[in-house]
Amino acid sequence: MSIKGKFITIEGMDGAGKSTQIQFMKRYLEDKGYKVLITREPGGTIIGEKTRAVILDNKHKEMDSRTEALLYAASRAQHVSQIIIPALQRGEVVLCDRYVDSSMVYQGKGRDLGYKPIKMINDFATQGLEPDLTVLLDIDPTLSLQRIIARGEGDRLEGEKIQFHVAVHNAYMDLAKMYPNRIKVVNANGKIEDIRIEVEKLLKNIFKGESIYEATNSYCSR
Amino acid sequence: MSIKGKFITIEGMDGAGKSTQIQFMKRYLEDKGYKVLITREPGGTIIGEKTRAVILDNKHKEMDSRTEALLYAASRAQHVSQIIIPALQRGEVVLCDRYVDSSMVYQGKGRDLGYKPIKMINDFATQGLEPDLTVLLDIDPTLSLQRIIARGEGDRLEGEKIQFHVAVHNAYMDLAKMYPNRIKVVNANGKIEDIRIEVEKLLKNIFKGESIYEATNSYCSR
Repeated sequence: MSIKGKFITIEGMDGAGKSTQIQFMKRYLEDKGYKVLITREPGGTIIGEKTRAVILDNKHKEMDSRTEALLYAASRAQHVSQIIIPALQRGEVVLCDRYVDSSMVYQGKGRDLGYKPIKMINDFATQGLEPDLTVLLDIDPTLSLQRIIARGEGDRLEGEKIQFHVAVHNAYMDLAKMYPNRIKVVNANGKIEDIRIEVEKLLKNIFKGESIYEATNSYCSR
Repeated sequence: MSIKGKFITIEGMDGAGKSTQIQFMKRYLEDKGYKVLITREPGGTIIGEKTRAVILDNKHKEMDSRTEALLYAASRAQHVSQIIIPALQRGEVVLCDRYVDSSMVYQGKGRDLGYKPIKMINDFATQGLEPDLTVLLDIDPTLSLQRIIARGEGDRLEGEKIQFHVAVHNAYMDLAKMYPNRIKVVNANGKIEDIRIEVEKLLKNIFKGESIYEATNSYCSR
């Protein structure tokens, strides 16, 4: 397949500031003349939505962790083939909020299935499509929990939850070591504005050597 | 996990006589004192049923073939963990109508995804659980099509359909060559009674050296 666009993912724990930064990234790139698509799974595909509904149904206490990982991969396969690849073929920049790395962290580590099998089923699901850049917003696990609680999405700081957040944080750090060329870690403990500047440096680097004229042209000539 | 029972699958094209022979197999084994469970995906699991409903919804013309393969694998993962493994742990004989080989044939070959990736995602889904014996009912593709039409499940002998049936037949033969110890091919063109006798020989072989007393005892002592 012919891919003209760029594929950028953003990762990090809930409360790390992904939604805020992804909007900054969009504005930055649009100002430079790129056509930008922000997406996240299930990405508006009917098949993905229905698959997610099976995963998230609280009645399904008996769900095997492998079933869950395969359903997430199925939802991703549809998102990639129906939404992401066509946008990249049109020359757009795709900003995806969470991707395979989240499955590595939450299923591979969180559900104890291991990184290797999760990587394997997701390589199949994504047709091997890897991001050109992954921005990993790295936040102190305790701080991310405090933010989640502050916005009313959690109840209180229980020991078990802190432990889980620390495990997720460690898993993200494992991935950053495994894929140092793709995953760029940004300290997300500080001010939103400082984080924005760091993220923009990474974007500049990715689009280095590509003039805005070429970029604009690439999707105009579709 | 401790597996005391035996896991036997039956494969072959529609119209090969699987439903008839699986009932004979059940009766034969029960007469010998075994407790037998006949099952097929989604096997009565709620999660499997809902996943199947997503696959089979005719409105989903846009479904990617990888999404489909992953949804089948997810349904299988649930069936294996919730139904098959517990029965084997109780020491029962599980007779499963179609299993991974069907995905190899219909997704790997039929959807052109290749045997290797289908094997890989299914090894993950099944926790590596392989049948002790797979009975492959081998029927002439034209004869199986005629049977399907005779029972009102097909309409007419179109060139495309014959071609597809021949491809499925060839794929089953590929698998029989790949797994000669597990997959036993039974000529299913002849009389039901002759096929039954051939299948019973295979069952005898699998339970060879295991006295009925031991077998009965194994599930009585659960």
